[in-house]
Amino acid sequence: MSTISTQPVKGMRDILGNQARVKRKIERIIQETALRYGFEPMQVPVLENLDVLLVKGGGGEEAQKELYTLEDQSGRKLGMRFEFTTSLARVLAGNPDLPKPFKSLNMGTVYRYDNPQALRYREFTQADVDIVGSTSALADAECISLAIDVTQELGFEECYIRISDRRLTNALIALCDVPEEQAKECMRSLDKLDKIGLDGVKKELQSKKISTEILSYLKSDLRQIRKELEKAKRSLEGVESLEKVMNYLEAQKKLKYVKFDPSLVRGLDYYTGTVMEIFGGAAVSIGGGGRYDNLIRSLGGPQLPAVGISFGVDRLTDLLADKQTEVPVEVFVIPIGKVEAEAFSLVGKLREAGFAAEMDLMKRNLSKNLASVNTRNIPLVLFLGEDELAQNQVKVRDMASGEEKLVELSPFGKLKEYLSTRLGKK
Amino acid sequence: MSTISTQPVKGMRDILGNQARVKRKIERIIQETALRYGFEPMQVPVLENLDVLLVKGGGGEEAQKELYTLEDQSGRKLGMRFEFTTSLARVLAGNPDLPKPFKSLNMGTVYRYDNPQALRYREFTQADVDIVGSTSALADAECISLAIDVTQELGFEECYIRISDRRLTNALIALCDVPEEQAKECMRSLDKLDKIGLDGVKKELQSKKISTEILSYLKSDLRQIRKELEKAKRSLEGVESLEKVMNYLEAQKKLKYVKFDPSLVRGLDYYTGTVMEIFGGAAVSIGGGGRYDNLIRSLGGPQLPAVGISFGVDRLTDLLADKQTEVPVEVFVIPIGKVEAEAFSLVGKLREAGFAAEMDLMKRNLSKNLASVNTRNIPLVLFLGEDELAQNQVKVRDMASGEEKLVELSPFGKLKEYLSTRLGKK
Repeated sequence: MSTISTQPVKGMRDILGNQARVKRKIERIIQETALRYGFEPMQVPVLENLDVLLVKGGGGEEAQKELYTLEDQSGRKLGMRFEFTTSLARVLAGNPDLPKPFKSLNMGTVYRYDNPQALRYREFTQADVDIVGSTSALADAECISLAIDVTQELGFEECYIRISDRRLTNALIALCDVPEEQAKECMRSLDKLDKIGLDGVKKELQSKKISTEILSYLKSDLRQIRKELEKAKRSLEGVESLEKVMNYLEAQKKLKYVKFDPSLVRGLDYYTGTVMEIFGGAAVSIGGGGRYDNLIRSLGGPQLPAVGISFGVDRLTDLLADKQTEVPVEVFVIPIGKVEAEAFSLVGKLREAGFAAEMDLMKRNLSKNLASVNTRNIPLVLFLGEDELAQNQVKVRDMASGEEKLVELSPFGKLKEYLSTRLGKK
Repeated sequence: MSTISTQPVKGMRDILGNQARVKRKIERIIQETALRYGFEPMQVPVLENLDVLLVKGGGGEEAQKELYTLEDQSGRKLGMRFEFTTSLARVLAGNPDLPKPFKSLNMGTVYRYDNPQALRYREFTQADVDIVGSTSALADAECISLAIDVTQELGFEECYIRISDRRLTNALIALCDVPEEQAKECMRSLDKLDKIGLDGVKKELQSKKISTEILSYLKSDLRQIRKELEKAKRSLEGVESLEKVMNYLEAQKKLKYVKFDPSLVRGLDYYTGTVMEIFGGAAVSIGGGGRYDNLIRSLGGPQLPAVGISFGVDRLTDLLADKQTEVPVEVFVIPIGKVEAEAFSLVGKLREAGFAAEMDLMKRNLSKNLASVNTRNIPLVLFLGEDELAQNQVKVRDMASGEEKLVELSPFGKLKEYLSTRLGKK
């Protein structure tokens, strides 16, 4: 038997223990928040027909090189999804009657055969929210608002969202007399600001023979940029859209989490309006998105405007699992003597009352049980002995303080209240 | 663009709308229940090294014929998981220090290239809970108890669990003088009882030249069987284990959901003790499981006893989505006039208070908005007009009764209370 692999596939990983508990919590928070916003959970298969994944012009050229492909037993050519947007476009094309706006939540694993590195895996979990069918800046603001709620609830204290607008960047590029055919190249260089710094971008622009004037605007605020564009009679579309988005967010008192940043362009060519990047702290990007009004059509779907935001759930998991401990169990019941059935009854009542509860299933002695409880960071232990049982009592030990107390067993109300207080539950 | 597939891969499906909402609810209930029982969420990759999936003797011979296989770009031979137990065995082999009992929850998609048919898909979602490391009947009772909680919370009114024990069946087979080498064949015939009826099984046994005496025990209760086995001095291991399991379940007042059924054997060869099948109503199987004390070793893992139960989440989804409607949104805000920012603020407050809330993102007129609200079964509408706003009010319409009421907008308490009452929330 020793010849069978005990490790997961290279570049992929098993998620266990605290990491798995934290990941589940992250997924729950994203899911519940998205549902409060009216996003609809949907599920597309991990496998897609290969033609769906290989569509040209959708900005997926890099990821297409990293595809996992296969044939099924009938020789159908298939591939594993590397993102959700291609599948979303297919669903929209195949279901033209879906009511608009179509607000979708796609959460699941995607696959890319790239070089494994820290915080990157060949199977990773993405959570995308998308609003399809609306051109309103309200939709952009909804996505940003949701991202703020999620980061807040996840416990990131210094979270913020950087936003800009492609149309604003384009107007600035035009203002700096960069010819239209060099606009994309110019943006690609700007996108490297975080990586190679201002000097690096400057050198790159110079080597591409593109004016570096644009760099002088990268620290400007929105009002200054509006003035410059107005003066030069350039398009104000991007500025005005951003003003609306920020106005809406201010109405929800969330503008404090948002930083306008004209240097933000985001790598992908397909963005047409707002672009945004979510930070869980200085330079810790945990997701991003933007408006992509032509992408769904490019991917084979109908012509529908869309805006969306995507969370890197594995990255979030790795970041948070280092800092947060989710206990597997709140209350552990140790039966002492022949009281298994009574302990089983008690553990049932605890669960019914909403506690995460377990009992010894290994017939361990007291010290082994306590050692296991300690290793697993379980906060409360109930000792259920024959004597206590005869007196309608159970002994509760708080593992942190060592404090012990005998509590009435039935009716269950007192025990429930005592445990809730100990656990800091309402 | 019309050449790109708009349909999912053959045999697989997109899950959208009410079906997706119901599926999410099912997954949430299974997950939350399992966590209350102290099961640990874990995640294994969809892809496994092919040798892991092709292990012999694990009872997966049929599923192995239905594998999706592929090579990654380095030529590694991989396959898509067709169940979770193989991966669980690999994880246990690769992580010998995992504390025991190891109580795992595996929920996700698995893949089998079989013939698509109603309620069966080539990608389907399974939810497995397993307790590894304990031989105690308490562990078997835990799995059954959890299955009862899940079916109750899902709203199945006539749910019950059929249970038996392989050791009891073996003892009965021996009692009927079926030679040991025919025991498996005998069990395979018994397993077809639901499909081909008593007469069918009788004929099949006769054609295999196996005594049909066993059939006379299939309606017996546990006490009768105990008597017969005692009289013949046959092993009582199975009977005694079942008695314990049922005694524990009685302590939780759950025995009423359990039916001992000596005809239950379940198809798979690897069960060694308790077997169980979950029914959501007469003849509607929604999951099952049992004790498999040797399987993990057969699959390449360490020698560890285990018991588990598995839910067919797609089957549950198809059954429940027909009967249950989960509304996507509880409250829909329609801004009337230039009050988008105020509406955006209001919808933010609603979500903060826990309501699933949306506002118009399409600048639709009143009648189109109401038509959309109707189609989507949204129960409450808030009309936010400039006049109402000036008077610190909002108009609430209950879509079912048509009743309308002006409610104070700020402070938010009154509106929150009114909406909660209307929605039947506490």
